[in-house]
Amino acid sequence: MNQLKSLIESRRFDLAITVLIVVNAVTLGLETSERAMNAAGPLLVVLDRAILAVFVAELLARFIVYRTDFFRDPWRIFDLVVVGIALMPATGSLSVLRALRILRVLRIIGMVPSLRRVVGGLIAALPGMGSIMLLLSLVYYVFSVMATKLFGAAFPDWFGTIALSAYSLFQIMTLESWSMGIVRPVMAVFPWAWLFFIPFIVSTTFTVLNLFIGIIVSAMQEEHDAEATAERQALQNEQELILAEIRALRAELRQRAETSKT
Amino acid sequence: MNQLKSLIESRRFDLAITVLIVVNAVTLGLETSERAMNAAGPLLVVLDRAILAVFVAELLARFIVYRTDFFRDPWRIFDLVVVGIALMPATGSLSVLRALRILRVLRIIGMVPSLRRVVGGLIAALPGMGSIMLLLSLVYYVFSVMATKLFGAAFPDWFGTIALSAYSLFQIMTLESWSMGIVRPVMAVFPWAWLFFIPFIVSTTFTVLNLFIGIIVSAMQEEHDAEATAERQALQNEQELILAEIRALRAELRQRAETSKT
Amino acid sequence: MNQLKSLIESRRFDLAITVLIVVNAVTLGLETSERAMNAAGPLLVVLDRAILAVFVAELLARFIVYRTDFFRDPWRIFDLVVVGIALMPATGSLSVLRALRILRVLRIIGMVPSLRRVVGGLIAALPGMGSIMLLLSLVYYVFSVMATKLFGAAFPDWFGTIALSAYSLFQIMTLESWSMGIVRPVMAVFPWAWLFFIPFIVSTTFTVLNLFIGIIVSAMQEEHDAEATAERQALQNEQELILAEIRALRAELRQRAETSKT
Amino acid sequence: MNQLKSLIESRRFDLAITVLIVVNAVTLGLETSERAMNAAGPLLVVLDRAILAVFVAELLARFIVYRTDFFRDPWRIFDLVVVGIALMPATGSLSVLRALRILRVLRIIGMVPSLRRVVGGLIAALPGMGSIMLLLSLVYYVFSVMATKLFGAAFPDWFGTIALSAYSLFQIMTLESWSMGIVRPVMAVFPWAWLFFIPFIVSTTFTVLNLFIGIIVSAMQEEHDAEATAERQALQNEQELILAEIRALRAELRQRAETSKT
Repeated sequence: MNQLKSLIESRRFDLAITVLIVVNAVTLGLETSERAMNAAGPLLVVLDRAILAVFVAELLARFIVYRTDFFRDPWRIFDLVVVGIALMPATGSLSVLRALRILRVLRIIGMVPSLRRVVGGLIAALPGMGSIMLLLSLVYYVFSVMATKLFGAAFPDWFGTIALSAYSLFQIMTLESWSMGIVRPVMAVFPWAWLFFIPFIVSTTFTVLNLFIGIIVSAMQEEHDAEATAERQALQNEQELILAEIRALRAELRQRAETSKT
Repeated sequence: MNQLKSLIESRRFDLAITVLIVVNAVTLGLETSERAMNAAGPLLVVLDRAILAVFVAELLARFIVYRTDFFRDPWRIFDLVVVGIALMPATGSLSVLRALRILRVLRIIGMVPSLRRVVGGLIAALPGMGSIMLLLSLVYYVFSVMATKLFGAAFPDWFGTIALSAYSLFQIMTLESWSMGIVRPVMAVFPWAWLFFIPFIVSTTFTVLNLFIGIIVSAMQEEHDAEATAERQALQNEQELILAEIRALRAELRQRAETSKT
Repeated sequence: MNQLKSLIESRRFDLAITVLIVVNAVTLGLETSERAMNAAGPLLVVLDRAILAVFVAELLARFIVYRTDFFRDPWRIFDLVVVGIALMPATGSLSVLRALRILRVLRIIGMVPSLRRVVGGLIAALPGMGSIMLLLSLVYYVFSVMATKLFGAAFPDWFGTIALSAYSLFQIMTLESWSMGIVRPVMAVFPWAWLFFIPFIVSTTFTVLNLFIGIIVSAMQEEHDAEATAERQALQNEQELILAEIRALRAELRQRAETSKT
Repeated sequence: MNQLKSLIESRRFDLAITVLIVVNAVTLGLETSERAMNAAGPLLVVLDRAILAVFVAELLARFIVYRTDFFRDPWRIFDLVVVGIALMPATGSLSVLRALRILRVLRIIGMVPSLRRVVGGLIAALPGMGSIMLLLSLVYYVFSVMATKLFGAAFPDWFGTIALSAYSLFQIMTLESWSMGIVRPVMAVFPWAWLFFIPFIVSTTFTVLNLFIGIIVSAMQEEHDAEATAERQALQNEQELILAEIRALRAELRQRAETSKT
């Protein structure tokens, strides 16, 4: 048991798994090439299965060692899901799972500390966006319902249902073909349609912009805070030194005065 | 009267209204789905009317309690408008009002404090943009008139009137199909048209960018100011302590010198 | 002469000119509308001429008063140019000047202090962009020559000359239809064309981004500098107070010691 | 030898080379114009060859003077490459090298200090982007493999191979025709395709945004650091002055007390 633990926690083990993930990334990539499959198809499949077996063994070993602590690290849960996908039968309506196998390659993020830090930073930026994301969803819902009621009958492909409207409005928010592709044709039927779309574009891009500004400002604030605190500390330490010096001087004088009195 | 006031101001009342708004959002959404209307159309309509009745009663109660103060909170005026829309007859040329009923869902922003704060922040950023928005409008007007005079005769769909030109220039400013869709066809007739459009694109995107930079800088400045003031205060407090200590020391010495003289 | 000067420099005169500019903006706008021209065409033309006459008289008065100082204020030179345009014969090949008359409306920027400040700020941001703009021009020139040599023969409409290439590359930099409109058709003939276009897109957008970051950082730096200096000054003033207090104390003690010696 | 060195390092020599580069830029540009070639083709070719000969002589001179140190300055290696390109036979499959000759003009960046600084700044921003670029590449690879497996059979032109998928995904990330051009046609066959593309758009644009925010924050941090350190230093110097003053006072008093004892 302890041997297993020290094996799992050794850097050499992590390195071996990382190398296997990279090799697996290459084999999964080659599987999409017909030429590579004709040349070495069976080899690629065998290699993929062998690596998958190692991954299953690795996760089992980790589970045996850490037990319930296994589920505390979100990267382990991610590992479990992406390895689990490969074990499910990818036939019939589940054949799409075959394409998801490549997600296994993302395990490398949990292995390389610098990537782990970057992804951690990206995820850490999410909670601060909560309120503004909720607001955006609300605006999307309201505009989607309105677009469906206003333009759904005339343009069923774009605004036939709330879901189609939401998709079209997302496209419009990204400014892709918003005018030539969508709004000009709509305005040919409803000449006042720009009163709906231009406020939508202006308000959502302004909101998304403020979302970004918020992230920039808070990222900067954080860096600045740590630094400013250190700076102020240095100044304050010296001030306290001065204060102590003055107080010592005062005490000394008082004491001397008392001794001279006697 | 006091009972009504305490009812309106209770958190439970706000919660009940919030829940009703969410339910209403769902029913208004389902009304756009033909399948939902076939299955439970009358129920949805009854539910919508019932909730509307509650909203009317709620606003009446608020008006009775607050009287003219009712109109001081901009969210109350918004409530009045969106509830009023639902009470207007949505027939004939006013049938578009039917689509605006969903705006009622935005009442939730005034109910949830975090959303209220976000929207307040967005609106607070507007006044600082006043001058630059005025400048942008001016530039738009001048370029719209010019575009109408220059290209209006040859391209009536895009630049036939000032309003059409302003819409086309907005599209060009968002960079949507500006070249392939508009400027290349125009240049086929007026080869020097790029002398009009490229300066327009560069100057308006540069102006909008500066608008955004202004917002970023002022948002940062605000956060920084509060913090820097607190920091400086801490340092200054300690300095005043030092100064007081030194002055006390001086006074003590002076006093002692005087007593020793006598 | 002094009367003329005090008239020109009175706020009422500026206000009158501003009102005339706004009226002129409206009449020039209405001139683009056929309906307005049919209804009140002669009136609009007379009004336009009358306002133009006032502007000419105003500029003459300013010139008489300020003489060569007239040309020191860049806004005056701008006024001279836009009023001059209206006085030139707009016939034949110069008929485009007719469209430029609306530029007169931009005089209002020089009249309204807040607009003047915004435009001043935008122009002040330009010199800091000098080096990076020079770099961008250089990159544009090099890529335009390359594009002309590589793709000019096969796609004369897009890359036939350096000027056409520069225009197409500007379109690609703005990301408008870069792939579907330009690069995919080019890649159908030259499969390796993405090796030319993707580095161009990445490097120019990265450079433009750095241009913007530079403006943000310097705008912030400026605001911060002024503030930080004020803050530091406050702390330093108090420090000097402390130092003076201590020195006074020391001098006092030394003096007393000397008097006690005697 | 020393004469050669002082020649190479003289400002006049640099200026002469800079002028030659500019002249060469013009001749290489004119070579793309058929009219210019008809009028002065032989002259342009001779001029180009003469300038190239000067560049070769210049690089040889630099190599003779600096020997292996020559390769320490990355701009020298760049010079060597771009001059070397012009010396290679540009025939047959290498005819594309002809178009690369214009790269020679970029030598001017190494000559003009302000351009050198700007490019240096751009390059200096790259290493900090390492981890996030690695993450982006990983995400691109994973999504490209998935897109190839999912949509490759139905849309061979867009997603037939990993390379085609990566190109299409880059186009989608730049938001060019992503919906009208690619995703709507794909959704006509695979209605759930938006589940693949919208997360891709949101996650990559969010990642790229964070990349940019990182650059902004670190650029600002750097400027701020230098300044804040200087500020704090000034305050600290004064504090040390105060401390020294107090200590001197204390020492003086102690010394006097001792002399008065004796």
